Amino acid sequence: MNLFEKHQAALNSAITALSARTYFTPYPENPRAYAEDADAKAKAWMSAAMNNDFTGLKQTGELAWSGEEVSPFLQIGIGVKYPLFSVESLINNANNAQKSWSKTDVNTRTGILIETLERIATRFFDIAYATMHTTGQAYMMSFQASGPHANDRALEAIAMGYQEQTRFPEKVEWVKNFGKFDLKINKDFKPVAKGVGLVIGCSTFPIWNTVPGLYATLITGNACIVKPHPKAIFPIAIVMEEIQKVLAENGFDTNIVQLAADSSNSPITKQLAENAAVKMVDFTGSSEFGNYVESLPKLTFTEKAGVNSMILDSVNELQPVLANIAFSVSLYSGQMCTAPQNIFISKNGVQTINVLVSYDEVVNGIAAAITGLVDNPKAGPGTIGAIQTEATYKRTIEAKNLGGKLILDAKSIKNEEFVDARIATPVVIEVDKSQKDIYNRECFGPILFIVKTDSVEDSLSLCKELVLEKGALTCGAYTTNEATKETIANEMNEAFVPVSFNFTGAGFINSHAAFSDFHLTGGNPAGNASFTNSEFVTKRFVWVGNRFM
Amino acid sequence: MNLFEKHQAALNSAITALSARTYFTPYPENPRAYAEDADAKAKAWMSAAMNNDFTGLKQTGELAWSGEEVSPFLQIGIGVKYPLFSVESLINNANNAQKSWSKTDVNTRTGILIETLERIATRFFDIAYATMHTTGQAYMMSFQASGPHANDRALEAIAMGYQEQTRFPEKVEWVKNFGKFDLKINKDFKPVAKGVGLVIGCSTFPIWNTVPGLYATLITGNACIVKPHPKAIFPIAIVMEEIQKVLAENGFDTNIVQLAADSSNSPITKQLAENAAVKMVDFTGSSEFGNYVESLPKLTFTEKAGVNSMILDSVNELQPVLANIAFSVSLYSGQMCTAPQNIFISKNGVQTINVLVSYDEVVNGIAAAITGLVDNPKAGPGTIGAIQTEATYKRTIEAKNLGGKLILDAKSIKNEEFVDARIATPVVIEVDKSQKDIYNRECFGPILFIVKTDSVEDSLSLCKELVLEKGALTCGAYTTNEATKETIANEMNEAFVPVSFNFTGAGFINSHAAFSDFHLTGGNPAGNASFTNSEFVTKRFVWVGNRFM
Repeated sequence: MNLFEKHQAALNSAITALSARTYFTPYPENPRAYAEDADAKAKAWMSAAMNNDFTGLKQTGELAWSGEEVSPFLQIGIGVKYPLFSVESLINNANNAQKSWSKTDVNTRTGILIETLERIATRFFDIAYATMHTTGQAYMMSFQASGPHANDRALEAIAMGYQEQTRFPEKVEWVKNFGKFDLKINKDFKPVAKGVGLVIGCSTFPIWNTVPGLYATLITGNACIVKPHPKAIFPIAIVMEEIQKVLAENGFDTNIVQLAADSSNSPITKQLAENAAVKMVDFTGSSEFGNYVESLPKLTFTEKAGVNSMILDSVNELQPVLANIAFSVSLYSGQMCTAPQNIFISKNGVQTINVLVSYDEVVNGIAAAITGLVDNPKAGPGTIGAIQTEATYKRTIEAKNLGGKLILDAKSIKNEEFVDARIATPVVIEVDKSQKDIYNRECFGPILFIVKTDSVEDSLSLCKELVLEKGALTCGAYTTNEATKETIANEMNEAFVPVSFNFTGAGFINSHAAFSDFHLTGGNPAGNASFTNSEFVTKRFVWVGNRFM
Repeated sequence: MNLFEKHQAALNSAITALSARTYFTPYPENPRAYAEDADAKAKAWMSAAMNNDFTGLKQTGELAWSGEEVSPFLQIGIGVKYPLFSVESLINNANNAQKSWSKTDVNTRTGILIETLERIATRFFDIAYATMHTTGQAYMMSFQASGPHANDRALEAIAMGYQEQTRFPEKVEWVKNFGKFDLKINKDFKPVAKGVGLVIGCSTFPIWNTVPGLYATLITGNACIVKPHPKAIFPIAIVMEEIQKVLAENGFDTNIVQLAADSSNSPITKQLAENAAVKMVDFTGSSEFGNYVESLPKLTFTEKAGVNSMILDSVNELQPVLANIAFSVSLYSGQMCTAPQNIFISKNGVQTINVLVSYDEVVNGIAAAITGLVDNPKAGPGTIGAIQTEATYKRTIEAKNLGGKLILDAKSIKNEEFVDARIATPVVIEVDKSQKDIYNRECFGPILFIVKTDSVEDSLSLCKELVLEKGALTCGAYTTNEATKETIANEMNEAFVPVSFNFTGAGFINSHAAFSDFHLTGGNPAGNASFTNSEFVTKRFVWVGNRFM
């Protein structure tokens, strides 16, 4: 049984889910679904790995070893060093690897790539600790986002790539009747890979945001260079190690994927991105750098910064809504690209089934819900994790000086396990709708603006204006009025932003489920890519049809 | 029965053919398949239409009436005048029309658009005469290319657009089990139209090259402005008239499609293309203008100039091959975007089953085959048609001065029906492979270069170098050697150019069949679009998914 046959059932399930947009994951998100000793082993592995060279890659000819990652939980360097390579050697290796990989048939590529996901799954716990101590995500998010959820997104890209590259027959006999005779032409149809890809990672989701582009590049027959953020190399390095192992075991050029670590002092991202051999660039990060990437004369897939909003109009019960908002704002200290930053509320308050709750009561309720969550020692530390960079920490601490009215200031809470963790709980600032200079830009981190508006129509109008200008990954809305719901959906959808309505309980606007929710639409200023619509793979290859008589 | 139900069977057949890439057309290409008096009626209609205003459009508020088309067969102006509109009014109308059309469901749009094709089919003979007397295509090509073949391409775009916009469910209940409870989220998935499209037509195929972009824009919910070439407005004006009629009859805003005629003296193309309301531009024409279009900060679909080549290595019998090449070169006087310009032949000659034919014999054989075709009064005039512009005529007549060795000069032949036709038969020039300044650029018109090379490997190498630099829409190759065939296919496909092997008889490399052959790959410098891959429609809308709890 070859690897394609081995994984064909999983592939078919993935394609079915992708088309039906129903719930699907082959990788359990609950750590308890895995071996009992897996966590303990990973902890020991992490201790041993720290302060050592990362030697797992099958890449040779390094110029130096370097590493500068700092654990947001420990606030000390983790001491892992990675081999650095010249841009020239990375490009040469990729060009060579492209030759054989592009000629490997789609079924073989599919089998190999799903096999790599199985192998990555054996490292989920190692990856969780590597993610925690680079990104500051709490344990559960580190495990889920970098492990099963990332693998889901990778499988989604593989499935879409397989589906699109097999949608036309490899060979067909075309017959045209001319009355007295038939004209017969044999045709073949080939998806031809476009060329070497570069995936530029970010510091907060080093795996989740990297593997969609990586696997979309690979499934379409292209070699891929992964340039991680210098502050978050460790997690993706493990992924690359496992991919290279599978490639080597199956007789493939391991340079089909290469890790291109660099340092903050000597960045190589632009050299790689501008190299003529690089035909496509995937990027996650700041709008400024993302705009630069989009300006390159090549194929680009970007996820930049947006400003996510919520519109709070009317609810059945207020408390579950406040709790839900508090969690969305606090989760990973607002460092998710899907975290809400602005909540638009009418000055007239929020209607519930029983009563009209005044605007001030709602504002205070949000603050109270956040405080209740973060001050709960069983929930707080595991929800907020740690702040990834000093800059985000500083921005959060100083947010009170931005203007507006301070409703709730940031503070520290105790994390029993990591007493030195870089922690700042959400800051809540009330602003008038006229104070656009404050809330109409991304303030990355646990910073929440409550915008006081004249009405729900006013909220929607301000919200739409904002996303047209700045883009957004998501939008939350609470309304019990069907007409209002439809209006909000239509208006925001026109701006190519999806809306999540009336989320409570275990549903959070931050979460985008693979195989069902598109992550980004690709249609608004927050980015031009979408995980995973068909374009995310079809742009990476070209259909070419030969004809034979 | 609504229009979607009326046309559902045709739609399903089209989607099936599109997926299987098999022969399909609902519109017979043989004029005899239509009413016996259709041609006579169209001739009379044409006589009446000439020297008159074109009043068929449902567009109002024109600034002036203007027309400058010259019949290449008569070499006199046809005297048809079209209403000219301000850019401002065209944009305003399109923006208004976009609002309702984008909210019309996909099924309704599909029904309406296929209905327009049925109505256009009732005008195939009028369109044929309008095409002849603007483009210079002979009658049969005018009928087929502007009529049934264009309708096929339009239906292909509709079918692909329907398929892609219905590939995900409109609504789904997503259920995630959390052990103790299920999280249920209702989701909807909507294809949201991107915005107003502009389609810029060319002078040689004013319908065939316009309707793919036009219908791809429309099926995805976007209003469309069609800016025809000022020298070839008449054919597409008839198409627009029929579309607007169907829209009006069904209660839609007729400005969903607008004809934006202009004049050579006061072109409005750039004003339209640069307008912020225009979100996508389809273009067919020169590389210079195409590169400008591609540089616009918006979605573009281009077909520019390429240089098509043939590689002549070995054949079973030489005569059928020479006849096939002669026809491909002569058809519509080499003014097809798929016409071959360069034939690469080894100095060692061409091996046939029986003998090795010397290089010189082959070269003379090509010239003799062309002369035999064009001098045959039954075949010549109907094959070559007329030269569309004076510039192309001049280029052809003066080609003998380009350098190289003149093998066959251009000349005139008698067209009994149109004694004043602008005619120039193919000129054949032999060049050395080193004379790249002569043959490595597009010489639009009936100009054929025979390039003397050292070997078939040399031919392939030169051919690949050329397409990497200049692009190509097609490539022909003749070889009886399987290994050579594979090498040529692989090398040219790597440059994203399809190859047609060993075409003889009724198979010509110039022809690209809808539902089967991709016209352009979108991967080489000849253009970034492909009729009709999935991207040709998916780029025109955005998937947006809302979630409801």
